[in-house]
Amino acid sequence: MLYLIGLGLGDATDITVKGLQAVKSCSRVYLEAYTSILTVGKEALEEYYGKQLILADRDLVEQGADQILEDADVTDVAFLVVGDPFGATTHSDLVLRAVNAGIPYKVIHNASVMNAVGCCGLQLYNFGETVSVVFWTETWRPESFYDKICKNRTAGLHTLCLESLVTDFRGKKIYEPPRFMTVNQAADQLIQVIQSRKEEGEELGMTEDTVCVGVARLGSDEQKIRVGTLNQLVSCDLGAPLHSLVITGRLHPLEVDMLRVNAEPNALENLHMIDSSTYTS
Amino acid sequence: MLYLIGLGLGDATDITVKGLQAVKSCSRVYLEAYTSILTVGKEALEEYYGKQLILADRDLVEQGADQILEDADVTDVAFLVVGDPFGATTHSDLVLRAVNAGIPYKVIHNASVMNAVGCCGLQLYNFGETVSVVFWTETWRPESFYDKICKNRTAGLHTLCLESLVTDFRGKKIYEPPRFMTVNQAADQLIQVIQSRKEEGEELGMTEDTVCVGVARLGSDEQKIRVGTLNQLVSCDLGAPLHSLVITGRLHPLEVDMLRVNAEPNALENLHMIDSSTYTS
Repeated sequence: MLYLIGLGLGDATDITVKGLQAVKSCSRVYLEAYTSILTVGKEALEEYYGKQLILADRDLVEQGADQILEDADVTDVAFLVVGDPFGATTHSDLVLRAVNAGIPYKVIHNASVMNAVGCCGLQLYNFGETVSVVFWTETWRPESFYDKICKNRTAGLHTLCLESLVTDFRGKKIYEPPRFMTVNQAADQLIQVIQSRKEEGEELGMTEDTVCVGVARLGSDEQKIRVGTLNQLVSCDLGAPLHSLVITGRLHPLEVDMLRVNAEPNALENLHMIDSSTYTS
Repeated sequence: MLYLIGLGLGDATDITVKGLQAVKSCSRVYLEAYTSILTVGKEALEEYYGKQLILADRDLVEQGADQILEDADVTDVAFLVVGDPFGATTHSDLVLRAVNAGIPYKVIHNASVMNAVGCCGLQLYNFGETVSVVFWTETWRPESFYDKICKNRTAGLHTLCLESLVTDFRGKKIYEPPRFMTVNQAADQLIQVIQSRKEEGEELGMTEDTVCVGVARLGSDEQKIRVGTLNQLVSCDLGAPLHSLVITGRLHPLEVDMLRVNAEPNALENLHMIDSSTYTS
């Protein structure tokens, strides 16, 4: 049996009881280590499980899947993923390989940023398409995330922006630690797009004053949530990774009340009442 | 301390280790019992936790929140929610009351249908706004869910339809078991909308042949996934609740491969290649 087990978002104890039981019963346990991270490392997990973990980098998962699935028809193998196992396309591919090889598989779900972000006070029902924000280089500055955010906002919807995580995908041995985008960097890139669109005379789908939410280390004991205008979030220090940024759409008064709990001074003062049930910025 | 603890989606062992530790340490433990259900009941949870649970119906949570929060500044109180604690607005309200009363709170996340649905093979990144489908009556037949689905499909996005759960909200004592919508009922209502729009000569955003996914008891050992055209899902028996229905948008070839694992005969034969990277139906 191949177990795909979500580890949740915080530390070693965020695994489910069912997941922990499965880990303990498996003869080999892989830890997927390139799409996300916990606030604790491999060693802490190994100590907690009482098991050695095999680090699975992108190369192993994409090129060496046969190795992961070896003997999984006669023994139990676990594949651990931070968050929920189906956050990344790669894991669908592993499942398909198992199915094609006649190996049964079982998924043990857990929280991921996609649902846990609801704790900031914005309703999950009111989110549109999720976007990912990539690190710009001097020559590569894609702006499609801005257009998707504006499309969501036009429909009154919030946008979860997942910040990119850069690892060295070229070799099997990754000695350099991955680079994580901060809320500040994402907010800064967004402001640069807004300014260039402003110069082009485009009607803006969002501005520097749009209310945004910065979330760091979601679901861990060191979680931080900051609510501010996009401008305020450029200079807001949220500490260690992982970070996510949410751009609000139309806000329900209950959402505004929840945002207020974590709001920067004056962050919510520019909200305009649209009708008796919603606000926007 | 007020703990809001997600129970995940399957049975008693889908709670996280952190959540279980918190439950065991609390002097009062409430079980929210009106927005969702596990495949096991209150008694199974009580036996597993070694604790009595207090059933929290809608009335208690909305009108009797003070009772839940009583002494929570000096003792630990747990509020258990199937899935993740922030699936329903009600729970934001409880958090706000705690904040206003100066009671610290802590959220222990878990999987919810919003992220676990990824196991059907559709990428979570490609989902648009979630819609909820309510039971029609003779005089009340809202069609807004259809329009939202079409809007998502126009943008190439999939739609998660959460089927409504009807309980008797009028009195505190609920003796009648809640009524859950099946995938068949949701598909049938959708087909009725399609037919009436067709008669009005409207250009259709989806048809009876659109590929859909029916999911039952997601995340439990009795999980069932069926992929078929909307027409096929009307007569597909998925068994006991809870059910969810997904309407596909543009499909990536890897998504098609994953859907094939659970597909009805011929369900995917009417897919059209849009360009070299996507399909639609």
